[in-house]
Amino acid sequence: MSVHVGVIGVGMIGQDHIRRLTKVLSGAEVVAVSDVDLSQAERVAKELSGARVFATGEELIASKSVDAVVVTSWGLTHATYVLAAIAAGKPVFCEKPLATTQGDCSRVIDAEVAHGRRLVQVGFMRRFDAHYVALKATITSGAIGAPLIFNSAHRNPSVPASYTSEMALVDTAVHDIDTARFLLDDEPVAVSVKSPRRNSRGGALSDPLFTLMEMRGGALVTIETSVNIAYGYDIRGEIVGETGVASLAESNPIIVKSASTFSGRVPMDWKERFGRAFDVEVQAWLIAAARGEVTGPSAWDGYVATVVTDAGVRAIQSGERVPVTLREQPALYRAS
Amino acid sequence: MSVHVGVIGVGMIGQDHIRRLTKVLSGAEVVAVSDVDLSQAERVAKELSGARVFATGEELIASKSVDAVVVTSWGLTHATYVLAAIAAGKPVFCEKPLATTQGDCSRVIDAEVAHGRRLVQVGFMRRFDAHYVALKATITSGAIGAPLIFNSAHRNPSVPASYTSEMALVDTAVHDIDTARFLLDDEPVAVSVKSPRRNSRGGALSDPLFTLMEMRGGALVTIETSVNIAYGYDIRGEIVGETGVASLAESNPIIVKSASTFSGRVPMDWKERFGRAFDVEVQAWLIAAARGEVTGPSAWDGYVATVVTDAGVRAIQSGERVPVTLREQPALYRAS
Amino acid sequence: MSVHVGVIGVGMIGQDHIRRLTKVLSGAEVVAVSDVDLSQAERVAKELSGARVFATGEELIASKSVDAVVVTSWGLTHATYVLAAIAAGKPVFCEKPLATTQGDCSRVIDAEVAHGRRLVQVGFMRRFDAHYVALKATITSGAIGAPLIFNSAHRNPSVPASYTSEMALVDTAVHDIDTARFLLDDEPVAVSVKSPRRNSRGGALSDPLFTLMEMRGGALVTIETSVNIAYGYDIRGEIVGETGVASLAESNPIIVKSASTFSGRVPMDWKERFGRAFDVEVQAWLIAAARGEVTGPSAWDGYVATVVTDAGVRAIQSGERVPVTLREQPALYRAS
Amino acid sequence: MSVHVGVIGVGMIGQDHIRRLTKVLSGAEVVAVSDVDLSQAERVAKELSGARVFATGEELIASKSVDAVVVTSWGLTHATYVLAAIAAGKPVFCEKPLATTQGDCSRVIDAEVAHGRRLVQVGFMRRFDAHYVALKATITSGAIGAPLIFNSAHRNPSVPASYTSEMALVDTAVHDIDTARFLLDDEPVAVSVKSPRRNSRGGALSDPLFTLMEMRGGALVTIETSVNIAYGYDIRGEIVGETGVASLAESNPIIVKSASTFSGRVPMDWKERFGRAFDVEVQAWLIAAARGEVTGPSAWDGYVATVVTDAGVRAIQSGERVPVTLREQPALYRAS
Repeated sequence: MSVHVGVIGVGMIGQDHIRRLTKVLSGAEVVAVSDVDLSQAERVAKELSGARVFATGEELIASKSVDAVVVTSWGLTHATYVLAAIAAGKPVFCEKPLATTQGDCSRVIDAEVAHGRRLVQVGFMRRFDAHYVALKATITSGAIGAPLIFNSAHRNPSVPASYTSEMALVDTAVHDIDTARFLLDDEPVAVSVKSPRRNSRGGALSDPLFTLMEMRGGALVTIETSVNIAYGYDIRGEIVGETGVASLAESNPIIVKSASTFSGRVPMDWKERFGRAFDVEVQAWLIAAARGEVTGPSAWDGYVATVVTDAGVRAIQSGERVPVTLREQPALYRAS
Repeated sequence: MSVHVGVIGVGMIGQDHIRRLTKVLSGAEVVAVSDVDLSQAERVAKELSGARVFATGEELIASKSVDAVVVTSWGLTHATYVLAAIAAGKPVFCEKPLATTQGDCSRVIDAEVAHGRRLVQVGFMRRFDAHYVALKATITSGAIGAPLIFNSAHRNPSVPASYTSEMALVDTAVHDIDTARFLLDDEPVAVSVKSPRRNSRGGALSDPLFTLMEMRGGALVTIETSVNIAYGYDIRGEIVGETGVASLAESNPIIVKSASTFSGRVPMDWKERFGRAFDVEVQAWLIAAARGEVTGPSAWDGYVATVVTDAGVRAIQSGERVPVTLREQPALYRAS
Repeated sequence: MSVHVGVIGVGMIGQDHIRRLTKVLSGAEVVAVSDVDLSQAERVAKELSGARVFATGEELIASKSVDAVVVTSWGLTHATYVLAAIAAGKPVFCEKPLATTQGDCSRVIDAEVAHGRRLVQVGFMRRFDAHYVALKATITSGAIGAPLIFNSAHRNPSVPASYTSEMALVDTAVHDIDTARFLLDDEPVAVSVKSPRRNSRGGALSDPLFTLMEMRGGALVTIETSVNIAYGYDIRGEIVGETGVASLAESNPIIVKSASTFSGRVPMDWKERFGRAFDVEVQAWLIAAARGEVTGPSAWDGYVATVVTDAGVRAIQSGERVPVTLREQPALYRAS
Repeated sequence: MSVHVGVIGVGMIGQDHIRRLTKVLSGAEVVAVSDVDLSQAERVAKELSGARVFATGEELIASKSVDAVVVTSWGLTHATYVLAAIAAGKPVFCEKPLATTQGDCSRVIDAEVAHGRRLVQVGFMRRFDAHYVALKATITSGAIGAPLIFNSAHRNPSVPASYTSEMALVDTAVHDIDTARFLLDDEPVAVSVKSPRRNSRGGALSDPLFTLMEMRGGALVTIETSVNIAYGYDIRGEIVGETGVASLAESNPIIVKSASTFSGRVPMDWKERFGRAFDVEVQAWLIAAARGEVTGPSAWDGYVATVVTDAGVRAIQSGERVPVTLREQPALYRAS
């Protein structure tokens, strides 16, 4: 009764999902792979006894042997494969971004709405992280009153020289943006970006970035994106409510006392911090896919993320507050 | 390539392991069940399409369809099934206790030694808990110097009226005892038990118990067993070394500020605290079993646990320090 | 060898300083008081055997019996008394604000510069708080690299109906502003203010306020001012540096585990949080005054605070980013 | 209206109290000093304009210029001076020990009882430490139920070669013993001592020591004394109650994130950890002394401490559990 999964794009992230599907989680079999680099696909398939190599993602999606599709190819190709999966009526897990343009995101939405049921889950794994899930539950419980401010910070030790300020928004802050929507259950109306004094470790890169996102209901979201901060991969989140505050705790397993300090470990990369969230995310998708349903972050979430990061990029360039305008939300995505 | 598992004893714990094997972990198929209550076995099997019901554990073990065995029956029957599994040359995961008498534990050891390779893993799940694993790694790293004292505390909210002081040692402190051996990499030489003022919530029960265990190398282990402490299921551990101290951190996902306090959650039961450790424990067993190996806590560990809790029970009764005498450790279990 | 202190204004704050000078600290004698309400001054003097009542602050300052002056009268009168103290060549401790207008602050600066030595200490007690002192020391040590962002938050349980958004800046955020200058060792160049969704507990008040202050060197300061947040008087501060982060720790003396949580106390008012800092602040002033010196927060610090809060008030009104323009800093205040 | 204090013994501790009385606290004047080393007394007096040097402690106590006495001489001389102070009817603050023998402690008690009012405060400063005060208040509040176990640990970085195992009890664990009595509001009935594996940093010294103290009401006290633990001067305390647990929090002012850890400072010596408690302790004594009262830790507390440490020393020597037998408590010391 396993879900027969086909994986499109078997680079580092694709291989990590294959490892997860075959060695960590319950209920999946990876039966098909494809990659723009055919020999790479063949190497990966060889280690998966029984997995078939397809020349193209489209053929993989069309194959009767494939129940559900994981898209971990290059971002620019995501929309094409997701649209094909929808056309084939197959559940698809697409790593972010859903698509690199608002237009493509919208086309996915239109296709899914036309199909009439959700098929797409976008890879916003933070929604499956135990810390964020507890934060959301506390907000919902009313324990801290209505949320007024969400302070979110993404910090990682370093980035390659090729990393740009646009990527700080599109690849990095996009997670904070989605998390804000998830926690506040609200949509953005405007974005502005400040560039504080540059971290000398990042050369000419505008690092850190400080993004302000205003929500429809008035809540304010602040997003610090620090990508050369050396000390750790440290994801912070704090909700300021009307009567209390809730924030992500540290995740250290032990406290060590030594040399005049007590200390706990801060993670050093995303695998250490979010490895388990990725497992839970994909397991949730598999369970739903086995029932022919998809319930995680939706194409709508992918669409909004792209609209907001687009606005953010314009805000960097102009130095101004940029309004965020969203299409009307289809009923399919409401009250999910 | 799944491991075909047979489960002997499908009460609450057996069913929880079946859930784990079929819905959480990778690489297992539950193909056989048995239980002293046949109708219970049939009910459980019905939900596992394909699982066969055996009238006895022995028949289940003998079946060719079964690659590996999980023993979650009544404690008194463990030794019989484990010995049968060894006789059949099949990997066996046995929930603690390995056996209820030293004699039976020793028989298991003899059988396994005679077989020449390890087949038995005993259910000391704390060794797979991320917090304890980090504690062990810190000791091994030398960061706090040689360990001199280990303070261990097991606290849980309440116990049923049937719970006895002997159970506080045999069922509860047994985990602290095994953890001490794991962390200190040493064996006990004596045990004494103090009964402080009784918790009025526990009626006539000697609760808390305070056990002192002395190790060969001189390290001292203190074990608090508080089983009616209301506030939570709180497992504490602290290693005092020559130059530093390391202790288990809290496991709360968030911090909430409200009503003049900041606070984090303390778990309320073993599932919340150790659910993940059980997953990791059984996954490790499956991975090893698929290779025909067993690497987790051994029959030796099960044997020592029984010897020490026996000594502890005598220490309660006599009020004296009771020496712990162990048989010679077979080479099979050294440097595991 | 005690410093003979005269206190101008013996309302709640004045009386608290008198208690401090007479019952907590070493080296002071309160020999003179005055108040706009003469009978109040007499009541207070009666409890201070030997203290003389003066009809006006000016007379008190002029008295030969008075070595040093504490100004805790109504804010509008501060400048007058501070100028009189400078004219008399006497050390003066002035509660914030130094003066309510930039012009008056500037006049104090001019007078002190003309006098040639510092005589004025302004009541920014956070600079004497052990937590902030440690934060400053860590920045200076280089342990977290150059500071890029300072996140500061003032939260208190509630305010009276008379409290206005302007007061959120002038009376409350003024401490965060001074602290930012102290920690970053830099001056502001611009201020903008966001008004997130209003806390329903504060009626029509713009609460919280979110102030952004840009510093000359490029560091960004964020200031949350939440004055109806119920849960506590909670002062937060976090410096984001190039290689690390440092933040104020909680100040709870104990951790209590109860009812499924571990928790620590959050202070409920400024006395609980900053009572000790006030003691240290005034003791430092006394020690310096006894040597004829003044070393704490200066008239310059008081001046900048007023300029920035003026800009902040305009930023609230206009919704725009308002530049901060400072007069040239006299040499007297450099490298203090 | 200052209290005129005479200080007997002006070595390191005496000088520290003189600094406290003259430069930190309110309401004291040091008017007299004496020391077995007369030239030392003269050096110290010279810095205290107006302080008179006495050839002997007895003469100092007898002087009309002296209102109250601080005894910080060599421990063997304490009883003599305290008895003289009682004979003179003057409040006396005596650093621990009150006396080095039970007989001398008893003589002090008899003298004070004969005098009819309390005059003696013994230097158990932990009772004035904000952390312990909060711990006591939480126990009293009933928030964690009746206390069943108190785990106390004293850890310091290193001791000189002259330090002995007896000193570990008499000079070090004596504070834990007094704290236990304070927190539990109960008296000891027996003591036993375990010597775990020795810390190699302490040579032949039995370090750590692990002392078990049983209280009348049945509560168990565990005392770890680690005096070569390198990492810090770390005082731990945890009360295990019927429904909850309360423990001393860390005292770090800030949290620093750097190099893959978050960390807070652990104090490195007693001044850093208890400096403030010493101030509060002596201020309390001064306030009471000015009213002719003494309210802090009493001669009874000093007596019990000596009885228990005597028993502890015998327990080390014998390896046995040693009963603690106390004289009847005079009414003067009840319900203090």
